[in-house]
Amino acid sequence: METKIVLKDSEIPKTWYNIMADMPNPPEAVLHPGTGKPIGPDDLAPLFPMALIEQEVSTQRFIPIPDEIRRIYALWRPSPMYRAKRLEEAIKTRSRIYYKYEGVSPAGSHKPNTSIPQAYYNKMAGRKRIATETGAGQWGSALALGASFFGLESKVYMVKVSYHQKPYRRMLMEVFGAKVVPSPSEDTQCGRQILSTDPDSPGSLGIAISEAVEDAATREDTSYSLGSVLNHVCLHQTVVGLECVEQMKIANDYPDVVIGCCGGGSNMAGISFPFLRDKIAGSRNPRVIAVEPASCPTLTKGVYAYDFGDTARLTPLVKMYTLGHDFIPAGIHAGGLRYHGDSPLVSQLCHEGLIEAQAYHQTGVFQSALVFARSEGILPAPESSHAIHSAIVEAKRADEEGKEEAILFNLSGHGFFDLAAYDDYLGGKLVDHEHPENKIREALSHLPKVGA
Amino acid sequence: METKIVLKDSEIPKTWYNIMADMPNPPEAVLHPGTGKPIGPDDLAPLFPMALIEQEVSTQRFIPIPDEIRRIYALWRPSPMYRAKRLEEAIKTRSRIYYKYEGVSPAGSHKPNTSIPQAYYNKMAGRKRIATETGAGQWGSALALGASFFGLESKVYMVKVSYHQKPYRRMLMEVFGAKVVPSPSEDTQCGRQILSTDPDSPGSLGIAISEAVEDAATREDTSYSLGSVLNHVCLHQTVVGLECVEQMKIANDYPDVVIGCCGGGSNMAGISFPFLRDKIAGSRNPRVIAVEPASCPTLTKGVYAYDFGDTARLTPLVKMYTLGHDFIPAGIHAGGLRYHGDSPLVSQLCHEGLIEAQAYHQTGVFQSALVFARSEGILPAPESSHAIHSAIVEAKRADEEGKEEAILFNLSGHGFFDLAAYDDYLGGKLVDHEHPENKIREALSHLPKVGA
Repeated sequence: METKIVLKDSEIPKTWYNIMADMPNPPEAVLHPGTGKPIGPDDLAPLFPMALIEQEVSTQRFIPIPDEIRRIYALWRPSPMYRAKRLEEAIKTRSRIYYKYEGVSPAGSHKPNTSIPQAYYNKMAGRKRIATETGAGQWGSALALGASFFGLESKVYMVKVSYHQKPYRRMLMEVFGAKVVPSPSEDTQCGRQILSTDPDSPGSLGIAISEAVEDAATREDTSYSLGSVLNHVCLHQTVVGLECVEQMKIANDYPDVVIGCCGGGSNMAGISFPFLRDKIAGSRNPRVIAVEPASCPTLTKGVYAYDFGDTARLTPLVKMYTLGHDFIPAGIHAGGLRYHGDSPLVSQLCHEGLIEAQAYHQTGVFQSALVFARSEGILPAPESSHAIHSAIVEAKRADEEGKEEAILFNLSGHGFFDLAAYDDYLGGKLVDHEHPENKIREALSHLPKVGA
Repeated sequence: METKIVLKDSEIPKTWYNIMADMPNPPEAVLHPGTGKPIGPDDLAPLFPMALIEQEVSTQRFIPIPDEIRRIYALWRPSPMYRAKRLEEAIKTRSRIYYKYEGVSPAGSHKPNTSIPQAYYNKMAGRKRIATETGAGQWGSALALGASFFGLESKVYMVKVSYHQKPYRRMLMEVFGAKVVPSPSEDTQCGRQILSTDPDSPGSLGIAISEAVEDAATREDTSYSLGSVLNHVCLHQTVVGLECVEQMKIANDYPDVVIGCCGGGSNMAGISFPFLRDKIAGSRNPRVIAVEPASCPTLTKGVYAYDFGDTARLTPLVKMYTLGHDFIPAGIHAGGLRYHGDSPLVSQLCHEGLIEAQAYHQTGVFQSALVFARSEGILPAPESSHAIHSAIVEAKRADEEGKEEAILFNLSGHGFFDLAAYDDYLGGKLVDHEHPENKIREALSHLPKVGA
């Protein structure tokens, strides 16, 4: 086959795939944080447009992608799927390694797959503004892009320490017209309260979420937007896997293993759900692997329980794998994987044995990233490098077992904004953090006392 | 048509196009800097492998691209050609705007189109090491990538002020295994000499060239490598235009105007030479426009004369448009366009009226870059934004003339490493430098007294 398989604009999927139609068991109810009772669409209406709320709970198997979204997707989709022949040679495996490359998007990652439809449905619902939070800035820049395309204002609450340490992502959001403020900010009651007691607060994702939610809840023209975790976000990301299904057909192959890195879970969901459909149907039996950092081992060391999505305990309660909502992971370079919880859909599929989980330390991950960069040429994001590392581990395992397997992973983004991390690695400054058993035990003792 | 036209790996051109076979007049001889006599292949042998020297002087119309190079090209080529419908809507033009996007390469620009073959031919000739210079680091990172693919060492002399101001490009070169030193360095006689009189020298491209040339000339295992200007570099870049010729056919259109930004001239040559072939043959009559910064107006304000390629007067003398080898342009953000001379081939075609030239100030260029980013989504490099600006100017001119034209430009690279420039623009800190008439007059008075 060719080095990469490209599809035409007309081959962009016409529908998203909704795995809720095929899951062996329905997802657990989302609970109101105050009453502990299941919440309904109306509870979410102040935050999200109704079209997204409907997608959040829909059990329809295929949900049409509006033409206007497909036309914008065409700015970078279908994304290429590569056969990693040069990587295979570099690690001397007999297995066939494939990767889907989402770094070709304008924001450099898979995130615009959902920021574009989110902006679209907000525009259709007559909203004028979107508020969101961002850590290192990947999601914020994707949302700013989506909002810009539909003439919406965007306001991004960026964790203050990142705002100052990572000015390039802030600048990219501003190029796309976003208003970016360091969080905690003077713009919300919650932010002002924190600043009044701690004027030098470095901020946190939990605080930034609280600010963005308050902003959206208190302004009728404004919605809140989330870049991962939720069902409708996972749904939008299935364009990745749906394209891969077609590209694997052209390659005349089918993956024995499908791999994605896992923070909130949306890129993992995106590449794997269309293949999990085959697995659930019993027509194929791919292994599906979610890869997380050893310093934030939600799926491998967490518990499957009801918990809050944020540190400040403002969000509804969802059943998911969690390390506890006040677990604070070590400051690894894969910032996008530092989340205490996980997508409820990915969590349930993991709990039911349809998805496996692996956790790796960052020095091994960066070692694999360098092998990849020097053979395939693409500089991978530290998050995506977890999937690369797992693919290499699995290829070597197959070699040892005398098997020749087809291994597919999602290269969810490029690392042009993460070069300081590579500099640390090359300079021998990267450290592996101990398995945070004590911190996990402590955080898990604070889980809310609700749910099944 | 679709938003973008993609081709398959198998449609990567099998040959480069050599415009020397079709030029109305042969290129002027290159002269020895000492004797003033034409130089031959043997004079260049200490610096370049013979295969590249042969390409430098060949008059064969199509030169085969070795399969091994095409396989590496396939990591990102064929690159997509877009119909810029969203840009057209944003500027309300009736013309059709197309752009070729070279930012999809691993180094983020068109430069690997030549760094890969240069590394290949050096490997074939048994060289073990390549030395080169780099300013802001675009070329250095492309060469590091090429060398890495063929297991060659690379040594990059990076202008000291950029080495410290732009650490990300230095880090990218190191990821690809290059040894990068700030120039002037202690590693060459020339560098040591400068440091002994001026330990705080910020360096210059002229000094860095001298160091790289000395490195290559004094070590038998080492070649020198240049990222633009030379004939063989322009030759390699023609893959860009050759793909565009096929993509325009699929779009069922032909460009009335072909536009490239012009520093050393290679990306300009790449997109335009295959279309100039039609123009020279008389079968078509596209206008071909080279766009330069008003602060370094080589083609628009320089003279067509013999001059040195470098400040230190070490290189052979070539006939080209020049502002004088000691002209120092203002510190604009489009660092890749700050060169006193131009490709001899582009210069001659310009002199003979086959290529037009335009010069623009940077604030207008950044204004167009922002319109482009917010409509097409891609963040363009400041250099490439000169071509965007010209395309917008030409579309508006066509509108005023009541014409509907097809306008094609080369988007030669992305701007993820140039966000500080956008920040300056958005913060109102960008200045336009006066036309440097006095500095040009002064520098032109130092032209060597040789040649026709």
